[in-house]
Amino acid sequence: MRYRKIPDETIKRLPLYVRHLQLLMDDGRSRICSNEFAEGLCVNPAQVRRDLSFFGNFGKPGVGYDVKKVLRQLRNILKLKNVNKTALVGVGDLGSALLGYPGFLQLNFEIVAAFDNDPKKIGVTKNNVVIENVSKLNLIKQKKVRIAIIAVPPEAAQQITERLVEVGIVGILNFAPCYLTVPKKVKVINIDIAMDIARLPYYLPR
Amino acid sequence: MRYRKIPDETIKRLPLYVRHLQLLMDDGRSRICSNEFAEGLCVNPAQVRRDLSFFGNFGKPGVGYDVKKVLRQLRNILKLKNVNKTALVGVGDLGSALLGYPGFLQLNFEIVAAFDNDPKKIGVTKNNVVIENVSKLNLIKQKKVRIAIIAVPPEAAQQITERLVEVGIVGILNFAPCYLTVPKKVKVINIDIAMDIARLPYYLPR
Repeated sequence: MRYRKIPDETIKRLPLYVRHLQLLMDDGRSRICSNEFAEGLCVNPAQVRRDLSFFGNFGKPGVGYDVKKVLRQLRNILKLKNVNKTALVGVGDLGSALLGYPGFLQLNFEIVAAFDNDPKKIGVTKNNVVIENVSKLNLIKQKKVRIAIIAVPPEAAQQITERLVEVGIVGILNFAPCYLTVPKKVKVINIDIAMDIARLPYYLPR
Repeated sequence: MRYRKIPDETIKRLPLYVRHLQLLMDDGRSRICSNEFAEGLCVNPAQVRRDLSFFGNFGKPGVGYDVKKVLRQLRNILKLKNVNKTALVGVGDLGSALLGYPGFLQLNFEIVAAFDNDPKKIGVTKNNVVIENVSKLNLIKQKKVRIAIIAVPPEAAQQITERLVEVGIVGILNFAPCYLTVPKKVKVINIDIAMDIARLPYYLPR
């Protein structure tokens, strides 16, 4: 099924809906109205209705949304139904934390390969993943991994990115504090921790 | 000096400018034109000029921007001139990584207090910070800390937030995967790692 063009801002909110619907289902809820659903997420109810309307008529006035059905369809749209095999490059402090991050598995992301250039780390098993030498990024191709998390120092990030694209990576979650240049087919999402904290003081009262 | 209302999108880009200008200054550059500056950041040059124009006339046509002067003023606007003392709550894997994160100090954020509820961690020194019992959040008031990083499990985050607000925290960088309810004077910036990776597959080619 093809959908009409979805705004990025809507796509940004859908994973929040998925996580929230999962919690509701775990709580045994089968139906929810948009107002209550929105409240739990601190999103405007009209926004929720508009977002979900992109994907067909989920809700019925006075009856609400079918939790299981909406969840299934959102997972489908976001391609979260099957396991998304993921590689991690850089197993420093931050990379180690990401290797054990519980939020990934909840959403069906499994880190199946990890790489570092530190001889002391290579060969070590962490969270059931053996850390490999970064010279062996070819393993990504063998394992048919398409998503990678980059947690290397900024000076190494561009070179690693180019190698990752060569071995078939098309989606990157980048924690290195720098801009990555990639071919058009590759999607990069940046998490730049220092940049986020750096705008906090501006908003603080005197 | 008071500036006219700055859009949040501009404020979001200013820390990037600061970091880039710091690198340029470290490289011994004293002047830069908006085109070259924008190129290094992958921002549109017109965007850079528009963003900087909010704060007065920095650049001169044909001469470019004075790196040191712009850097000083941007740091001033973002309140990054003086050290921003920061507290960390939750020293698990992610919290530990944040405690040693080099990007914070570069931008003048110093973690001066860390808290956890795990008896095995309390009293341990990491990166020159002694991990304190989370029951001692009062220390934040004593040390006049106004910014906190939350890296606790989601079920504990709201309660911790309320305690933090009580002891004087007005800015929060929240890594817990949940929405925090705070008084109006408190600014929260969320980094929700799983939500960011969750929208990657949507963009990938088949």
